[in-house]
Amino acid sequence: MILVKLGGSVITDKSKLKTFRKATCERLAREMSSSSDDLFVVHGAGSFGHIEAKRHGLHRGFKKDSQLEHVASVQRDVRELNLKVIEALIDEDVRAVSVPPAAAATFKDGGVVSFESDVFRRVASIGLVPVSFGDVVPDESMGFSICSGDLIMEALAKSFEPELVVFCADVDGVYGSDPKRDKHTELIPRFGPSSLRALRRTESKYADVTGSIYGKLERMLAISGHCEKCMIVNGNVPGRLDKALRGESVVSTVVVPE
Amino acid sequence: MILVKLGGSVITDKSKLKTFRKATCERLAREMSSSSDDLFVVHGAGSFGHIEAKRHGLHRGFKKDSQLEHVASVQRDVRELNLKVIEALIDEDVRAVSVPPAAAATFKDGGVVSFESDVFRRVASIGLVPVSFGDVVPDESMGFSICSGDLIMEALAKSFEPELVVFCADVDGVYGSDPKRDKHTELIPRFGPSSLRALRRTESKYADVTGSIYGKLERMLAISGHCEKCMIVNGNVPGRLDKALRGESVVSTVVVPE
Repeated sequence: MILVKLGGSVITDKSKLKTFRKATCERLAREMSSSSDDLFVVHGAGSFGHIEAKRHGLHRGFKKDSQLEHVASVQRDVRELNLKVIEALIDEDVRAVSVPPAAAATFKDGGVVSFESDVFRRVASIGLVPVSFGDVVPDESMGFSICSGDLIMEALAKSFEPELVVFCADVDGVYGSDPKRDKHTELIPRFGPSSLRALRRTESKYADVTGSIYGKLERMLAISGHCEKCMIVNGNVPGRLDKALRGESVVSTVVVPE
Repeated sequence: MILVKLGGSVITDKSKLKTFRKATCERLAREMSSSSDDLFVVHGAGSFGHIEAKRHGLHRGFKKDSQLEHVASVQRDVRELNLKVIEALIDEDVRAVSVPPAAAATFKDGGVVSFESDVFRRVASIGLVPVSFGDVVPDESMGFSICSGDLIMEALAKSFEPELVVFCADVDGVYGSDPKRDKHTELIPRFGPSSLRALRRTESKYADVTGSIYGKLERMLAISGHCEKCMIVNGNVPGRLDKALRGESVVSTVVVPE
């Protein structure tokens, strides 16, 4: 089984509310359609989730009743994005179906406390491709919290131990510093726990309620312990995902648990 | 708690593929918005589900691989309808969120074999209104099967024992014969098991993969045993749902278990 993450910054314009990057998503769907392996797909919420979630503090959980209309509204919006991703996949003959994270997982303190992998297994067992996503979810201690796409990626990796996990990002992989600010920084081809310690903490310039790049890398390191290979490729460069899925050599960062 | 079913023949035009009856759905959302009770909503799939499902025999379960693209496509389409219903509710300040039936239920032989009511309870406990729907679902014996809106209504009624269950249909209630064919037939104000036995079996003229009117009435009778009051009102007549929710006298059929 191969687990693919479509980053919210790849399939949406994170700076503009609810802007779907249709052509990019359609191309990535095409690159996935030629894979002969069983696929599981997760996508981020991008500008269909983070902007409104941040504005109303949804990542901090229930504070006041007026947040609830925004919980409903963000859930609606991320499902709109999910249907667009699924439509792109179906158009490329990938039999994609939606599985919201709260259909399988229960949450507490912003983390997963139980995960019913059968919800995904049942879908995959009849030849369908489950597509999950970052979402606002009920949370036993916080009322509600944010389940990032990466959090559900980790739960899936732990349960299904995939051969390959591919993260499609809007950069070629992990750099020594932010490649959008520092032109001389170099791609780290192999990233492990020691690389994380060496990395200077950088902050994203766009609204993101699921933590910094640093937090994302910690999660990827955890995921890399539950699969044969874990890699980050640039989803904006045509062919990179396709090559990664075929096991061909490709510009990327491979994430290793040690 | 009040459980409301929005019939697929009310919120869609069942004769035309994917035709949403937006104004009707918005009005029903408005009628629900004034209710001070906790609401659970279920809607049918109407022409977003039945037409393609029937064409490819999805109600008979897995027969050949080529059905799978239609399973994915119907699931996508019913979620598109679900988001339209949720949008109409949110626009009327009902904090509606989507809960697909397979998030809570597992299915075998076209029936529910287990139901995890906590999936709904968690959503309702933070003040949100769960909205479920008729869907194509994984099925342990059939591969996949159809979960009608009425089937998920029954599971919800059993688990939550609502005060009131209201079915919004495209007729005033149950008649002695099909009111669209026989102008002299009369509304049955109180419908029980003996009324069902007396009723001549009629067949719907539109594609419906969830059984005849007769099957629907059997299910309503079962539901009526799990709530204080179960009634059918005409969702196409403004004010009927509103009156039913307020407990006022209204043209309807009350369904009784004995």
